Formats: sequence, structure tokens, C-alpha cells
Amino acid sequence: MAVNLSEPTNLLPVTGVRLGVAEAAIKKPGRNDLLLIELAEGSCVAGVFTRNAFAAAPVQLCRESLKATSAIRALLVNAGNANAATGSAGLEDARRTTAAVAAALGCAPQQVLPFSTGVIGQRLPLERMLAAVPKAAADLAAGAWAAAARTIMTTDTVSKGASRRVATSQGDVTVTGIAKGVGMIEPHMATMLAFVATDARLTPAATDAALRAAVDESFNCVTVDSDTSTNDSCVLCATAQVGTREIGIGDADYALVSAAIREVCIELAQCVVRDGEGATRFITIEVGGARDVAEARQVGYAIANSPLVKTAMFAGDANWGRIVMAIGKAGVEGLDPARVGVALDDVVLLEGGEPHPDYREERGAAIVARPEFTIRVGLGRGDAQARLWTCDFSYEYVKINAEYRT
Amino acid sequence: MAVNLSEPTNLLPVTGVRLGVAEAAIKKPGRNDLLLIELAEGSCVAGVFTRNAFAAAPVQLCRESLKATSAIRALLVNAGNANAATGSAGLEDARRTTAAVAAALGCAPQQVLPFSTGVIGQRLPLERMLAAVPKAAADLAAGAWAAAARTIMTTDTVSKGASRRVATSQGDVTVTGIAKGVGMIEPHMATMLAFVATDARLTPAATDAALRAAVDESFNCVTVDSDTSTNDSCVLCATAQVGTREIGIGDADYALVSAAIREVCIELAQCVVRDGEGATRFITIEVGGARDVAEARQVGYAIANSPLVKTAMFAGDANWGRIVMAIGKAGVEGLDPARVGVALDDVVLLEGGEPHPDYREERGAAIVARPEFTIRVGLGRGDAQARLWTCDFSYEYVKINAEYRT
Repeated sequence: MAVNLSEPTNLLPVTGVRLGVAEAAIKKPGRNDLLLIELAEGSCVAGVFTRNAFAAAPVQLCRESLKATSAIRALLVNAGNANAATGSAGLEDARRTTAAVAAALGCAPQQVLPFSTGVIGQRLPLERMLAAVPKAAADLAAGAWAAAARTIMTTDTVSKGASRRVATSQGDVTVTGIAKGVGMIEPHMATMLAFVATDARLTPAATDAALRAAVDESFNCVTVDSDTSTNDSCVLCATAQVGTREIGIGDADYALVSAAIREVCIELAQCVVRDGEGATRFITIEVGGARDVAEARQVGYAIANSPLVKTAMFAGDANWGRIVMAIGKAGVEGLDPARVGVALDDVVLLEGGEPHPDYREERGAAIVARPEFTIRVGLGRGDAQARLWTCDFSYEYVKINAEYRT
Repeated sequence: MAVNLSEPTNLLPVTGVRLGVAEAAIKKPGRNDLLLIELAEGSCVAGVFTRNAFAAAPVQLCRESLKATSAIRALLVNAGNANAATGSAGLEDARRTTAAVAAALGCAPQQVLPFSTGVIGQRLPLERMLAAVPKAAADLAAGAWAAAARTIMTTDTVSKGASRRVATSQGDVTVTGIAKGVGMIEPHMATMLAFVATDARLTPAATDAALRAAVDESFNCVTVDSDTSTNDSCVLCATAQVGTREIGIGDADYALVSAAIREVCIELAQCVVRDGEGATRFITIEVGGARDVAEARQVGYAIANSPLVKTAMFAGDANWGRIVMAIGKAGVEGLDPARVGVALDDVVLLEGGEPHPDYREERGAAIVARPEFTIRVGLGRGDAQARLWTCDFSYEYVKINAEYRT
């Protein structure tokens, strides 16, 4: 059901990154569900994680290790089990998986970051995972991004990856990333597992800044169902394989590399929405005329998360009254309805708070019949704006989530 | 699909209230869709209305008239069209309907309050409504509460009403109310149209206080789909037909009458949820151990509005990981997962942030297979608590709202 989304082709290898996959039969057998990413010595890693108070065990361990060491050498990712709400036993399970990777690669357990996605509240099948780690290590290869993207899928129907190449003063830099979605998606720090790597020699501060700026304009601008996962994690790995001079935040090359990172993150975030559970529409929401960006986002999310807006879009029904309802419920203090405008692509529905005299039902219906369109809102009270991406709400969403564990 | 809900029987007449209905073919012909409620002279009316910034034309007019006069004599209610987002023309339409009622009953237009529910963004079929007003006036009768409750239904599958009788120092007082739902329901001041009447001789201040207290514990504690209507209105009419002494807030009778009003409102609010669009489960959410009520409600609403919790409940799947996710995403500053407990009815799932050792999947499944159950949450950080009611999220919700205008 994904909207205008196909398997990624031509994911560019990133020097200093090797990827290996294996089957651990975590949820069920018959597919690879364990991914190992090995990073060259000297790599710089930054991560952003969920704001959910019930952060999963692997998220807790990532935060701990990123604080303790700057020399991350590997990421271990499993699909099918989130290792969340598993208490102290879950934390111990996560530690044992990183120890197994450390043994296989010859580094310290703290140099291995764990990531999990899947069902919440169940223990990991630890023995099967520990047995699969050496297989994933034996599978490590430089170009295996496509297999990696497939391995981390859960309810995703299409694997997600994106690449950019940019010429810097020290030579060509590559950025490649993969992500998975596609339910429990309203990231507030990052999304449900995205891994981005570049061979640029970014400083730790530049790595962190580039990641945060990119996430703010990508994963933090999407919602499928308003639910924030316990396992959201987005990591940027800079392997320092291009050039010899470090790229700091003030450098000219930083602008080039961080722009490429941002583009990869936006493409991945859009992939997550295009493949949102049950999605049949890919909807951009642009809110302008706000007093500040927070207010613009508040209105955008109110529209994007409204079940009534989403079900109307699924039906191809330009029921713009529901968009107006969502703007009105967003809680913008002192909003003056008489200054609000709403359009679907270039068809104006509401202007100055009044229905536009030229609007005809057929014109709105023609827009929302398309698989992709934009809901534009003007609040008429300032200059700030925001852009979000979301999808519609279909029978299929209910089906996927009602049958998820069966 | 309503959960343990049948048509109200034995709705008690309230002295001083007459009700009449008529067909205006507002959305489609073949049913009564216009309700007129006439109040005895000397009645005292209080109202609470939506916080949606796009308050509908009738809501704007209600606020204006309640400010201007204390001598309300009639309420006019239509189903099938919300008269919201209709600009200045919609406001004029609403005025013309109140003028028609005033002409039929011999009072001033300002003494008539209008209420509308239905599609947003379309003009009222004014001529048909004006023609139906005299018919509704001719139909006025003291006991017509059941017909009134049926007349205001939209996507409701069962009409909603409740009555209480309470003995006061001046004689028996009756409270009867009707309401309609059942989508776009997360009232923040009141719900989508509820009308409650009593024959008690309440002072204006007591009428207002009794309404606000009742709404706060009833309509402001339910959610079907997190969307707040542009037309939410709840009105309490005290017709002053019992006794001769006014009942003020400090009087002993006030406690009796206001408790009856609260009970009627809670029953009506629960009816709205039981008949929530597509509902197959009626779910009570109790959150305790909070620092304050606002925090308890914040967590309760995060659970109640989570599409993932709601679809799991629809499936009869005790996927409690999603409940934990929702608690965690609620945004409670400094929440300590290690102090959180979760139970389904009396089956403990999580205690001190750890899965309960005695929990077995079958025990949770047995609870959520029931049509009614309670999700209990303890936050372990204070003494405040809150109770909400919600329903599950089914294929039928998507179907109802995808096909609403077709």
C-alpha cells in the first residue's frame, strides 16, 4: 500500500562501514532479522533518542555508552522485539548481545550500540540472538546496505534507504542512510531506527550538530499515528575516511556535508510516511502565518493526527470542515478564525475565515483523489512556518494493528 | 455496535419543559431532525461550549444571548448540519432560525438558543428549517424526551437519555437530560450537544456551578477519537417549578440536586462513549498516584487516544506494551518508570516498572475479551487521580468516517 515508494536502488557504499545480516528467528523464522554494522576505527558517532519515558533497554544502554566512550565500533540491530518495558532483565539481555558482538569483533562491549524494534514487553530470544551474532559478523561486507535495510523491517512493506554524494575541498563525501517505520510514529527526537553514515571526517561536535539539525527537519516533522515509540533512535556515523583535516561546524565543507545529511534524513523520513501503516495518501502539511515555528507545528500536528481528517483523506473526500475543526482545536491562544485561510494544493477553500466563493466540491475532490497533495494553512498572525508529512488512516491501519501479535 | 447500551426508557418529564420535533430534511428526508425545547417563564439557563477556535455560528449566538439576557425561553436544535465554518452568512442563518422560533412562541429572538450538529462547512437549508419550526411548535408536549433524544442523533446508533429524581426539603426534584455523540468527541468544555433540565428553583449562580461541576466529571472525561467538535454545547435548564425558595450554592438542597445533575451527566457521557463510532469495547481508564489531576488526565488521555492501544483493544489483544508506550509518551516531566504500575481490572501487568512475575498472556486476554473493563495506572508520584472513559478503534470507525458525506 506504500504511496509512490519503491525499494531503494543504488545505495552508495560508505568507506569505513561494513554490514552483515543473519537470521535469529526473533519473531518468526524465515527471514534475516539481525543486522551488524561495523565502523572503522576513528569513527565519530552521534545519536538522538526517543523522549518516551519508557525508553527501551537498548536506548538506555546507547545513552550510557555514548556518554562513556567516543570510540563506537559497531551497531547491533534486531527486528521483531523491542526489548522495552522488560525491566532490569531486559537491560541485562541487551548487555549480553553487545558483549557477544564485542567478542566477535575484538572490541569492548561499550563500543557496541544495541537497537531493537518490534513487540513491547517481551524478553529477547537471547540464545538465538547470541548464536546469530557470529554469523552476522562473518557476513560483513562494504556494500550490503540494501540487505541491511531489508533486515530491520517490521510492518514496513518496502525497505528504506537513501544516498547522496557531495564534492568537498578534500574530495567526494558519501552519505548513506537506512530507516524503518512504520507504526507508532510521531518521533519527538528521532524516528524508530534510522542509521546514517558518512565517510566525512567530521569532528564530534560537527557530527552531533549535523545530526540534530537534520533530524529536526526530517524525522521530527512526520507522524503516522501520533504514537511515540519507546525505541526511536537515529544515529549518524562519520567514519573519517575522506581527507585528513577535520571538518568543524564553522567550515565551508560542513555546510555541504550537513546539507547532504539533511537530504538523506528527509528522504528517509518521507519514506517512513509513504509506507505508513495502511497508507494510501502521502500528505504534506504546510502551515504559515504563525507567530513562531512551535505554533505552526502545533497546528500542523493537530491536522496530521486528526482521525477525522485522516479518514476523510482515505475516502478521497475533501471534507475541509474537518481541517478547520483540527485548526480550531489545536489550542492556539487567541487565534482569529477571520484571518485563517486553507487550501488544498492551489485550490483555496477558506479565505479570511469564510468559505471561498469560487470553491466547488469537484475541485477539492480532484485534489484529494491524488496519491500526493498538500494541505496549506495560513494563520494570519505572523511570519513563522512549518512543514510536516503524514499519511491517511485506512481500514488497513486497523487491520495491521489489530492483528499485529497474532 | 454500541456497547451495553439500549434506548433509554422511563425518561421522567420535567415540569416547565415541553418538547416538540419536526422533519426539516436537513441532511436527507425521512426522519425528524429539528427539536424545539420550550422552557417555562422564570427558568434559569447555563451553558458551556466548545473551546474550538472555530466555534460554530450557533455557539457564537448562544454565547451572545446568554450574556445579553437571563430569560431564555427556548432551545432550537437541528441534526445533519453543524453550521460551522460558514462565516457571516452562517451567523445570519442562525439568527433567522431563532427569529422564527420567537415568532412561533411569542418571545424575543434573543430568548431562543440555537444548536446545530452535523457536517461542517455547509450552509443550513434555511427555507426547509423555517417551514418546520411551526410544526415543531405545534408538536410541543411535556413528556416527549424520548422523541427529542432520537431527533438529535447523527451517527449515533442508539438515542441517549437519563433521569434522576431526588427528594429535597421543598419536594421531589427531577433531572432529565439527553445527549448525542458520537464522533469528533474529545470535549474540552462540554460535549457535542447535551441538554439537561431540572424543575429545581436554582439560582443563576447555582445553575452555572452545578453545570460546570457536572461537566467536569462527565463530558470532560470522555474521548472517542481525540477530535474536538466546533459545536460542543451542554446546557442546563432549571425551570423553578418545585418549591418557592431559591436554592443557592450553599444550601443543603444544592448538594442533592447537583449530585443528581452530575449523575445524569455522567450517564449521558458514558452513553456517548458506549455508542462511540464503531465501538466494540467500553473502557474505563483510572490513573492514580499523580502529582495533580491535570497530570493524571494527561496520562489518561494519552492512553485513551492512542490509536495503537485502541486497535489492540478492538482485537481483544492485551498488548500492554502499548499502554506503557502511551504512558511514556504523555509528557509527564520526570516520570520514573521504575515506580509505574499497570493493571487490567484486577490483573497486574507491571509493578514497579517491571513485568509482574505472575502475569500470563491468557489472564490479560480474558479481561480484554470483555465488552467492558478498566485500565488502571499508578504513577507512584503523588495522591491525585482521574477517571476517563473511552472506546476502542475498529474498522467500523474508519468506515463511518470515510463514508460520512457519501
